Amino acid sequence: MSRIVRFHEFGDANVLKLEEIQDKDPAANEVRLKVEAFGLNRAEIMFREGKYLEHPKTFPSRLGYEAAGVIDAVGEGVTKFKVGDRVSTIPAFSMYDYGVYGETAIVPESAVALYPAHLSVKEAASIWMQYLTAYGALIYYSKMKAGDFVLIPAASSSVGLAAIELANMCGATAIATTRKTDKKKALLEAGAHEVIVTEDEDLVKRVDEISKGKGVNIIFDPVAGSYVQALAKAAAVGGTIYLYGALALEPTPYPLFESLSKGLKVQGYTLMEITRDQDKQDAAVKYVFDALSSKKLKPKIDSVFKLDQIKEAHRYMESNKQIGKIIVMV
Amino acid sequence: MSRIVRFHEFGDANVLKLEEIQDKDPAANEVRLKVEAFGLNRAEIMFREGKYLEHPKTFPSRLGYEAAGVIDAVGEGVTKFKVGDRVSTIPAFSMYDYGVYGETAIVPESAVALYPAHLSVKEAASIWMQYLTAYGALIYYSKMKAGDFVLIPAASSSVGLAAIELANMCGATAIATTRKTDKKKALLEAGAHEVIVTEDEDLVKRVDEISKGKGVNIIFDPVAGSYVQALAKAAAVGGTIYLYGALALEPTPYPLFESLSKGLKVQGYTLMEITRDQDKQDAAVKYVFDALSSKKLKPKIDSVFKLDQIKEAHRYMESNKQIGKIIVMV
Repeated sequence: MSRIVRFHEFGDANVLKLEEIQDKDPAANEVRLKVEAFGLNRAEIMFREGKYLEHPKTFPSRLGYEAAGVIDAVGEGVTKFKVGDRVSTIPAFSMYDYGVYGETAIVPESAVALYPAHLSVKEAASIWMQYLTAYGALIYYSKMKAGDFVLIPAASSSVGLAAIELANMCGATAIATTRKTDKKKALLEAGAHEVIVTEDEDLVKRVDEISKGKGVNIIFDPVAGSYVQALAKAAAVGGTIYLYGALALEPTPYPLFESLSKGLKVQGYTLMEITRDQDKQDAAVKYVFDALSSKKLKPKIDSVFKLDQIKEAHRYMESNKQIGKIIVMV
Repeated sequence: MSRIVRFHEFGDANVLKLEEIQDKDPAANEVRLKVEAFGLNRAEIMFREGKYLEHPKTFPSRLGYEAAGVIDAVGEGVTKFKVGDRVSTIPAFSMYDYGVYGETAIVPESAVALYPAHLSVKEAASIWMQYLTAYGALIYYSKMKAGDFVLIPAASSSVGLAAIELANMCGATAIATTRKTDKKKALLEAGAHEVIVTEDEDLVKRVDEISKGKGVNIIFDPVAGSYVQALAKAAAVGGTIYLYGALALEPTPYPLFESLSKGLKVQGYTLMEITRDQDKQDAAVKYVFDALSSKKLKPKIDSVFKLDQIKEAHRYMESNKQIGKIIVMV
């Protein structure tokens, strides 16, 4: 028996239940983890609310993308991992099939990776979603390099912080945006070259100053909604706006005038574009593994909850007070 | 003195005036053409209405992008062309600086090209806007190839027909859309592999059938507006929607859900992206020149007006009855 987080209906954090469930064996090409820690993502809140790209097929539903732990059972055909391997999960599955919140989790073998040995389990549960997501847009698609100006809205999220770190690795200029002043200092400490406080400052004017009139050529935004118009005004000629989320929960206009005059691309992007192709995923995992190993990347943990505090952990994420990853220790 | 088409205020075709104007000499790096024919483009109607990306700096304003004629004067520093050369103009300038409707036109040397000798002057005034525009999106950006499915809304425009021809050249499948049945036959004759009549047929369903469930990976649309949602539904995973115009004159939504789930790009595109870089323009001109010379491309003339019928010519373009280029002979 294991304690597993599930929900039986869409709703606020109260729908999350910690339930004693009979352990299952992994099927072919699956592995089972004894989970030591799992990381929270905005996707799980949206999934719990029924507002995510995907919905549970049936209730009750598990949830969760990122866990670190020890493999304690392997299904038929599993070749890359064995019982006892210390691994963490890659969000290369749908939450309607798999979820990792709980004491055990079964995931496909293809959604598991070793992590650098110097990382704590907390850190190990904080790497694949954030770094692979940022990698896909910034490295795989944009080939980010010195001289690039990268605008990172909602920069205090774990993916936002990962984007800041990757920009630094590549020699690009990371311009973080945050709504209020309270996170400005932490974002500068996290490596942002500039921070724009959008409630107090004019985004377009500040980007113009910072980039000396050039504009930002990469924008990496999980919010979407009407603010995309301002992002387009801040964009450089030939720039790309990656939209990797829909946090605004409002219609997103296409900035047609700016796009025509500057040849902008507005590109929907999810990590699935990397993980649905094994070669792309392998290259991405290697890139991140190597950068972690050489300590060019270091995941930032904001706070740690216990398993029976899962509701509080979700509520804390919804408060938007965190800067970095929220972890649940099992 | 030459008869020149100008307008003194924004408005319908009636604002176009045919006026006797003193000839000017070309300035440095400019050439003057004795115009033999000019081609009409939708851009000029929008410019005349004050709805184009660019506006006249002062009134009266000239207009027009595409003329064929003979160079009768060259400015200082002009090296590539001489008096007597038979050339046509490339829309590599702003209409607030230059316009070619009239008996003479001055344009920058960099906006002039020789055309294949077998073309008539009517045809010579019908090549650069349409083929270079389609080239930029389909060849330069998309590297269109056999196996691609290309959706071409407003396909009976000169740029739409050019896109159909280029798709055939590259072995791609050209799917033309048109609002009513009356142009279907002509589009099939022009080389469209399939024609979808959008007032009668379900775009997404038909694209699904034609592409065997794959969707179209290239969409080349001058309309924008709310129909972009349907285009996104018809797009293949990883597809690109090029928006190269704003004919709908209504807000364009960003198809966020489809873009996130399929990794779509929605890219604003104008020919300026090619013409503002001399190397890109030279490569594009060579590509089109060679394809015209080998008769893989052949511009389609819809109708021919006289210079004193310029208002009628504009009204005819606004009627949307044409299939191919509307030419004014001077």
